[in-house]
Amino acid sequence: MTPSTAYVTPGQAFERDTDYLPDRITAEPGRSRDPYERDDLAAPTRPAEPGRYRLVAAKACPWATRAIIVRELLGLEGVISLGLAAPTHDERSWSFGLDAGGRDPVLGISRLQEAYLRRDPSYDKGITVPAMVEIDSGEVVTNDFPWITHDLYFEWRDHHRADAPDLWPAHLREEMDDVMERVFTEVNNGVYRCGFAGSQEAYDEAYDRLWNALDWLEDRLADRRYLMGEALTEADVRLFTTLARFDVIYHGHFKCNRQKLTELPALWGYARDLYALPAFGGNTDFEQIKQHYYVVQGDVNPSGIVPGGPDLSGWLTPHGRETL
Amino acid sequence: MTPSTAYVTPGQAFERDTDYLPDRITAEPGRSRDPYERDDLAAPTRPAEPGRYRLVAAKACPWATRAIIVRELLGLEGVISLGLAAPTHDERSWSFGLDAGGRDPVLGISRLQEAYLRRDPSYDKGITVPAMVEIDSGEVVTNDFPWITHDLYFEWRDHHRADAPDLWPAHLREEMDDVMERVFTEVNNGVYRCGFAGSQEAYDEAYDRLWNALDWLEDRLADRRYLMGEALTEADVRLFTTLARFDVIYHGHFKCNRQKLTELPALWGYARDLYALPAFGGNTDFEQIKQHYYVVQGDVNPSGIVPGGPDLSGWLTPHGRETL
Repeated sequence: MTPSTAYVTPGQAFERDTDYLPDRITAEPGRSRDPYERDDLAAPTRPAEPGRYRLVAAKACPWATRAIIVRELLGLEGVISLGLAAPTHDERSWSFGLDAGGRDPVLGISRLQEAYLRRDPSYDKGITVPAMVEIDSGEVVTNDFPWITHDLYFEWRDHHRADAPDLWPAHLREEMDDVMERVFTEVNNGVYRCGFAGSQEAYDEAYDRLWNALDWLEDRLADRRYLMGEALTEADVRLFTTLARFDVIYHGHFKCNRQKLTELPALWGYARDLYALPAFGGNTDFEQIKQHYYVVQGDVNPSGIVPGGPDLSGWLTPHGRETL
Repeated sequence: MTPSTAYVTPGQAFERDTDYLPDRITAEPGRSRDPYERDDLAAPTRPAEPGRYRLVAAKACPWATRAIIVRELLGLEGVISLGLAAPTHDERSWSFGLDAGGRDPVLGISRLQEAYLRRDPSYDKGITVPAMVEIDSGEVVTNDFPWITHDLYFEWRDHHRADAPDLWPAHLREEMDDVMERVFTEVNNGVYRCGFAGSQEAYDEAYDRLWNALDWLEDRLADRRYLMGEALTEADVRLFTTLARFDVIYHGHFKCNRQKLTELPALWGYARDLYALPAFGGNTDFEQIKQHYYVVQGDVNPSGIVPGGPDLSGWLTPHGRETL
């Protein structure tokens, strides 16, 4: 497929556009239930009401898959429905090619762009997933991905399943915010800084930063079952969706190739431990992931050819991390 | 660097151009000393005379590195000199950017193309390495790489060092020819058929053939120290230069990514066993290899960025194959 967009800007480092639609979906108007957000919210809010929203995601996308996983971990499937975009898209938008007739059966649209334009007819920024769409109005409420999963936890607690995990343990919050920040800048976004670098210098710096952080994580996970210790948290969700793409995409396509994930014992065991949980493994679609990156990012992979490898059978081997 | 040439032809499988300058350098005029070549030679011959030729090679190139290795294994350094082209080149030619003033000190040329044009002013085929150049006339005698190493063995025997290995053992010859043929079509050239495939179908077929052959080799080498059994032969030289490039180039850049070489125990031990020999390891320049493929093949890697990985420290670890 012809490159739809330029992902690499020659001579420049990759800068992620983080200008998202900022609205929040909250339990109470104008404020958050997260004790770390004490002030009234600057962004407009809409009510956390069962049946009112549709989460539009794509299993190809690491940022969107975070929201898919958290929704399922918390048992929110009955109150927030899920629409899934196809792995490949053109320059205009993610679209609903996986659905009958190429339309999302609830929103009735064929391209996610339509929901962004419903929100703002002059919208000209990125058409991204995840997007929370209000079903009645058909408009995107927010695509601000870290806040989407944050609010699924803090604002929808009345609707969580009884045994939902405590994804944001209060006593670990400050350390967890630091860990998540470093994981975001150096790893989640770090792989993109390698893959979309527009110069050797920008790439070399990105590569060093990435591997510095992966060495830190390998060390941290050598004696901790999860990133924050004994229990699964939001920080694990955020790291997992990058690790799941590491060997299939980032290692070769993004040149993050010092080692494969399978060569980093603690991280590889950790990734398999999470993969064994249905919310993680059941929402990891390696084929869609491969289709997306190799076909859509035509300026990195001009031929559009999707590799046959890697062999993925190792994901189901015992990880032995129960004893940590 | 801007792509100098199109390596990928959209919609098509990769076909290697094997139309080489066919002259032979032989001990006796018009005939070969290889007992398997009984008839007079069809190609013109020139005499195997010490000091008369310069082997022009490049450590980046697997085909050329075969000749560098064989020359050294046989102790021919004193009778055939060696010129080394730089790892990157433009659309016109391999060139001598590694030498002082950018000129080969013996041939006095800056581009290998000059020696091809000296041979034939209308030469318009590939400017390839290895090339045997006659020093006095300054012209390329042959670039037909499998015959170059063949003739270093059979035609220069009077000049081999006393303990030179028997690279073409007569009692194994027929099996060895079959093995080398399969290694050439499926592996040496097979990786290029993956990397330069112009369609998904051509790639998928090339990938399956490659891994089929690598599985056969992995099995063959599980209980044989060398490809033909207990002793090193030409067949090992031909396989080695592909294996040395496998993880640094073919795995990612050519999408040969079912496994890394390091994940194939017999092949990986075998490659390290050969690498420990000075003629092999001393002529394996991973940096030049990386520069060549990633910079020159701009239609596969448009950014021209050279990856930081893989970690190569494993090449020096014990291989344990002495006991086979």
